[in-house]
Amino acid sequence: MFVTFEGIDGSGKSTQARLLAERLDDVVLTREPGGSPGAEEIRQLVLTGDPDRWTAETEILLFTAARRDHLERTILPALEQGKTVISDRFADSTRVYQGATRGDLRNTVDELHRLMIGREPDLTFIIDMDPEEALRRGLARKSGEDRFEDFGLGFQETLRHGFLNLAQTEDRCVLIDGNRAIEEVSADVATQFAART
Amino acid sequence: MFVTFEGIDGSGKSTQARLLAERLDDVVLTREPGGSPGAEEIRQLVLTGDPDRWTAETEILLFTAARRDHLERTILPALEQGKTVISDRFADSTRVYQGATRGDLRNTVDELHRLMIGREPDLTFIIDMDPEEALRRGLARKSGEDRFEDFGLGFQETLRHGFLNLAQTEDRCVLIDGNRAIEEVSADVATQFAART
Repeated sequence: MFVTFEGIDGSGKSTQARLLAERLDDVVLTREPGGSPGAEEIRQLVLTGDPDRWTAETEILLFTAARRDHLERTILPALEQGKTVISDRFADSTRVYQGATRGDLRNTVDELHRLMIGREPDLTFIIDMDPEEALRRGLARKSGEDRFEDFGLGFQETLRHGFLNLAQTEDRCVLIDGNRAIEEVSADVATQFAART
Repeated sequence: MFVTFEGIDGSGKSTQARLLAERLDDVVLTREPGGSPGAEEIRQLVLTGDPDRWTAETEILLFTAARRDHLERTILPALEQGKTVISDRFADSTRVYQGATRGDLRNTVDELHRLMIGREPDLTFIIDMDPEEALRRGLARKSGEDRFEDFGLGFQETLRHGFLNLAQTEDRCVLIDGNRAIEEVSADVATQFAART
C-alpha cells in the first residue's frame, strides 16, 4: 500500500508520516523532493542556489525527473516486496503549489504526471491546519534549505484551500484535523489507516 | 533564424557549427546538452557519475529540463534580438538516440517535446558520415565526459540510419555529405544556408 501525507508547511505532516511508520511493520518511510539517491541529487540542484534561476516549467520538469527516480528506485521496489510505503509529499504537492503560483500550468502539470509518472497513492492523508499556527511552526524549524517555507501567511492560506479542494475531489484523500495535540492527530491517522487496509 | 547541426559522434557537426557561426554577424553559437548556466548544471548532473544510475525515462526528463532552460535563457532571447542562433545538437539528438536505444519511448519523447518545448529549428543540417570514420574521429577527441561516444560502431550505424530517416521526413532538414575535407563541407553548408535565408 502506497500512502502519502500532504499539507501546508508546518502542518505536522512529516511528524505524522513518521509516527504512522513507527506503528507498522515492513514499512518504508520516504519523502519528496528526494527519496532516492538520484532524486536527492536533483533536490540539491533545485533547492540550493538562487531559486529564481529556474523557471516554473524547468522546475516542474526537474521535480518530475526526481519523482520518476523516486518511484522507480524506492517506491515501486518496496511495494513489489509487499511493504507499505509512506511518503512525506508526492505529486499532490506539485499540483497544489503550482496551482497556487502558476494556475495556467495546471494542465501541463497533469499531462506531465500522466505521461511520466502515472501512479497515484492508494491513500493520502491531508493534514489540515490553521495557517497562522502552521506558519509559526514552519518558521520555527526553517532549515535554510526548504524554500517552500519562504512565502508567508497569504500564500499558506492559498495552499490550504488547494489541499482542502483536493480532499473533496479525490476519493483516496482523507482530511485530518491537525489543530490538535500530536498524539491525538496520530491516533486519528492510525484509526483511519486501519479502516482502509 | 534558429539553425541546428545534428549527426553521429565524430561527424564534424561541432566544427561545422563553429565554421558557419564564424561566417555570420549577430550570431549566438550554443550546444546541447547545456547551452545556458542552468542547463550546464543539469548536463553535469547527467553526464558525470555512474551513467546507469538514471533510467531512460528520468534521463529524458532531465534533458528536457535542460532544453527548456536552454530555450528560455539562451535561444529565445537571442532570436528576439534578431540574432541567428546556431546550436550543436537539439531535440533531434534525443529523438534519434532514444529511437536507437529505447524505441518504445519514441512516443513519450514526442509528447514530452510537444508539451514542454514546442519549438523546432527553422533549419537543421544533418552531417552524414561513414560510421567507421566518424567513430575514429569521435574516439580521437574523447573527453571522458561525453558518454555519447562510448557505444561503438554498430550503435553509430543505427544512429546514422536514424538521422538519415529524419532528413527524409522533415522539410527543415538538409543532408550534408561529411565525408569530405572540412573546408569543402563548410562551403557546402554556407551555400545551403544562404539559399534558405
